Amino acid sequence: MTSPTTARVVYAGARTLRLEPAGIQAPGPGQVRIDVAYTGICGTDLHIYHGDMDGRVSPPQVIGHEMSGRIAEVGDGVDGWQLGDPATVMPLDWCGTCPACRAGHTHVCHELTFLGIDAAGSMQGSWTVPARTLIGLPKQLALDRAALVEPTAVAVHDVRRADLRPAEKALVVGGGPIGLLIASVAAQQGADLRLIEPDSYRRALATGLGFACLDPADPDLFRTIADWSHGAGADVAFEVSGAATAVTTAVDALAVRGRLVQVAIHPVPREVSLHRIFWRELTLVGARLYDRVDFETAVTMVAAGRIPVTALISRIEPLGRASQAFSALESGAGVMKVLIDCQAVGG
Amino acid sequence: MTSPTTARVVYAGARTLRLEPAGIQAPGPGQVRIDVAYTGICGTDLHIYHGDMDGRVSPPQVIGHEMSGRIAEVGDGVDGWQLGDPATVMPLDWCGTCPACRAGHTHVCHELTFLGIDAAGSMQGSWTVPARTLIGLPKQLALDRAALVEPTAVAVHDVRRADLRPAEKALVVGGGPIGLLIASVAAQQGADLRLIEPDSYRRALATGLGFACLDPADPDLFRTIADWSHGAGADVAFEVSGAATAVTTAVDALAVRGRLVQVAIHPVPREVSLHRIFWRELTLVGARLYDRVDFETAVTMVAAGRIPVTALISRIEPLGRASQAFSALESGAGVMKVLIDCQAVGG
Repeated sequence: MTSPTTARVVYAGARTLRLEPAGIQAPGPGQVRIDVAYTGICGTDLHIYHGDMDGRVSPPQVIGHEMSGRIAEVGDGVDGWQLGDPATVMPLDWCGTCPACRAGHTHVCHELTFLGIDAAGSMQGSWTVPARTLIGLPKQLALDRAALVEPTAVAVHDVRRADLRPAEKALVVGGGPIGLLIASVAAQQGADLRLIEPDSYRRALATGLGFACLDPADPDLFRTIADWSHGAGADVAFEVSGAATAVTTAVDALAVRGRLVQVAIHPVPREVSLHRIFWRELTLVGARLYDRVDFETAVTMVAAGRIPVTALISRIEPLGRASQAFSALESGAGVMKVLIDCQAVGG
Repeated sequence: MTSPTTARVVYAGARTLRLEPAGIQAPGPGQVRIDVAYTGICGTDLHIYHGDMDGRVSPPQVIGHEMSGRIAEVGDGVDGWQLGDPATVMPLDWCGTCPACRAGHTHVCHELTFLGIDAAGSMQGSWTVPARTLIGLPKQLALDRAALVEPTAVAVHDVRRADLRPAEKALVVGGGPIGLLIASVAAQQGADLRLIEPDSYRRALATGLGFACLDPADPDLFRTIADWSHGAGADVAFEVSGAATAVTTAVDALAVRGRLVQVAIHPVPREVSLHRIFWRELTLVGARLYDRVDFETAVTMVAAGRIPVTALISRIEPLGRASQAFSALESGAGVMKVLIDCQAVGG
């Protein structure tokens, strides 16, 4: 008699991903087991791959958190889910008792466990998670597209933090996947958008999606922004690039009382013109992760075809080619979002 | 026949203040002439004195903008003011047509003229200003105390920008006049306050006013803040010091979703932990000057004795001792607010 097995990719230390067979973990009480369809590779996964997050990750560990799949097994006490139901996971497990949780900000819990970083992730054929993390998907939504619900939820949260109003002029600084998703969500809410991105491939892709793009190297950048905004500056800027210069660009481009939403992760302190923030009475707002409502909105938007997720999927690779997929993303050029097909071993 | 004359102090270039006689300027249409009672010396006046603002100030120029006085003469077309009425001045003259003005943010007009910096100020016996800048004062309010209405209006504006709610824990970083006024206004609104100030004289003065003070050099500072806030951090911080380290202290001391109001002027960009702002979803809000409603609230609060303005007045000097007054403030130690008695020449 043999146990059922599946395959998984483990992060084994800096720049080392290893494909290996794995036993299937039966769900305990309150848990479900998911047959994972797809797992997208996110910027955080790249940081882990580089070894920059070894303080949080415990190799050998399965990573990955942008996923879609189907319910494969249901643990005791779990109601409302049938085998085969399509679902994604909001990969947050909070303590419920810290000051942030008690104030209602569970998504930024002081003791947050993020599945795929602080605990096992979804880059495997079978993933067992708490049932309360499940978010249902409409049956007509293709599971490759559904793997982009999680980053779309990030974008929905970021736009919500901006308190964006229709017809406001919004600048998205950084045209990677999250930047394009923010632009897409903001466009749905009626924003007048400009996207600033140095990479010509990404600008071309964004232009093809209908976004007006600016090159930060253009010496006329600020004149263009002034013309666009009739001399006022942007009402809102989203800093999605993580570059030191992007922060300065965003601060300098804002109108009086403009709002800058800080989305990207800056590993070191950045020089910020507090004088400009004072002088124009700007607001700088941090935005991290999502609430459940953001995830649900993201499902609705992606399922309705209002977010160009298909255009963002550059390629789909089997588990066995995860290393190559990470390398391709690392090189940056010509790649936007890469998905891992978690039912295909390949490689 | 001689023209009526008065006296004035002019800023004649870096570190040079000159007492001189001056003709009285009759008010034109829409203007009033004020017999100035007192003019307070503010941090901005010190910057001017140091020559740091020669790009905006045009020596020889009368400076000063924290003032009180009585209506001495009324120009054509000015209604509602009688000779002898006590008044202060909201020293802002905006264009009305720039994007900031059109959006209703006249106090941060792109072309703002600030009386006392960009145009003649109140450190003189007689000051002629547009009648629309006048703010009436109750007759029972002593004019020395009324000279602190302007900095109190700054504090009212800063607290309004914080969106402070009763019982919230608020940290004031910097215990100079504006810091103490912010603490006083925030206390009126029910905040639970801590003031961080390195100077022992200022801490003693603040303690005497009933504020709990912390020393930034205390190695237990963050443990104390954690204990005070039950592990959450402060809901609001006001950065009023202008020191680079104060920004870091304020950012690090805030709770999840905490708000940092940037009040002080930082002449150079500062290193800010954008990661902390992201991680805790903090908000950084710039606050500059005031709206008319802030001035009116300040008059009400000062007149009702709810702001300890008398305790903040360290000394009152005649016009002829303006240089000595600036020097005393410059040395910092043992001095909070210095007023110039603009009807006394002395010196």
